[in-house]
Amino acid sequence: MDSRLREHLTFLIEVDRLKTVLRASPLAAADRRENDAEHSWHLALMVMTLAEYADEPIDVGHTIKLVVVHDLIEIYAGDTPIYDTALAESQQEREEAAADRLFGILPDDAGAALRALWDEFEARKTPEARFAKAVDRLQPLLLNWMARGGTWRTPGVTAADVRARKAVIGDGSARLWEAALQLIDEGERRGWARS
Amino acid sequence: MDSRLREHLTFLIEVDRLKTVLRASPLAAADRRENDAEHSWHLALMVMTLAEYADEPIDVGHTIKLVVVHDLIEIYAGDTPIYDTALAESQQEREEAAADRLFGILPDDAGAALRALWDEFEARKTPEARFAKAVDRLQPLLLNWMARGGTWRTPGVTAADVRARKAVIGDGSARLWEAALQLIDEGERRGWARS
Repeated sequence: MDSRLREHLTFLIEVDRLKTVLRASPLAAADRRENDAEHSWHLALMVMTLAEYADEPIDVGHTIKLVVVHDLIEIYAGDTPIYDTALAESQQEREEAAADRLFGILPDDAGAALRALWDEFEARKTPEARFAKAVDRLQPLLLNWMARGGTWRTPGVTAADVRARKAVIGDGSARLWEAALQLIDEGERRGWARS
Repeated sequence: MDSRLREHLTFLIEVDRLKTVLRASPLAAADRRENDAEHSWHLALMVMTLAEYADEPIDVGHTIKLVVVHDLIEIYAGDTPIYDTALAESQQEREEAAADRLFGILPDDAGAALRALWDEFEARKTPEARFAKAVDRLQPLLLNWMARGGTWRTPGVTAADVRARKAVIGDGSARLWEAALQLIDEGERRGWARS
């Protein structure tokens, strides 16, 4: 086996670790927390299913690539829960270092290609990145809805906080943001998120 | 929320169940079996990383779509382990019925689009489907390698059986099949697969 293919396979075995990075969100289908690999797969299917609601035309295949790689760096940087403001302060630095380490396993050109996708997702300057981010925020909202609150019940978090953190959905899709707001409003009425 | 979007979201919540469908393969990064959602994500990243080894030119975005949907029907049909010949007999019938049920949750056009991807994957008549299938067979081989045998140790299974079930990798990529054979041969020498 040549060294290039060996580097590819070494990387593909290392990323198995994404299946062990737990998120705060509860699954809808089982009584446990979701992991990053499952989450990333769910986003890929959401992009395919919901692309028609994107405000701008998007390349669906490219958008799927963005969501497939978007959480990889959490293998080393860990998950930063959306309502954890203390962890958020160090997030960018931790994630940049993790990206250098992880993508460095690959041959240079292949590592640069994945790194470019991660950078694009983070920058949100393309229609694809904006829609990918919208779906990334919508997915746990659906899980929280099914769990009658889920992480909305985090101590100190209010429905207004949820709306503020989820507003980025509107940068990718007005229709999906409208639907998300309906769910948050109804969740607040039912007492699943504090007023 | 209009009924079309409601059907889309209902489907996207139903598919959360894929995260509860366990495969026979052990993870490399943790002491538990893999689930279908994690597996599907891993394949998506493998398609992106290994596309250069495809024997025929492939549309990477389209190939990723194939692997994202390829196991969805197991939500109702269950996983059919590759070395379980009894279950394999009823596999096609169970999976067709599951596809009708699952894709029927979606609006007709959306359900037909996902069904077409699943049919394409199963038929293996396009370069994208052949490469997707190759990666689907290569991924658990890497996990079994890391587990010093994994499902290769299934009672009654020999290294020759493993080679026979994995040969389909060669329909998508001669290079990856050559690498897979090296791993199986070495696994047999080490006693991880029976001679």
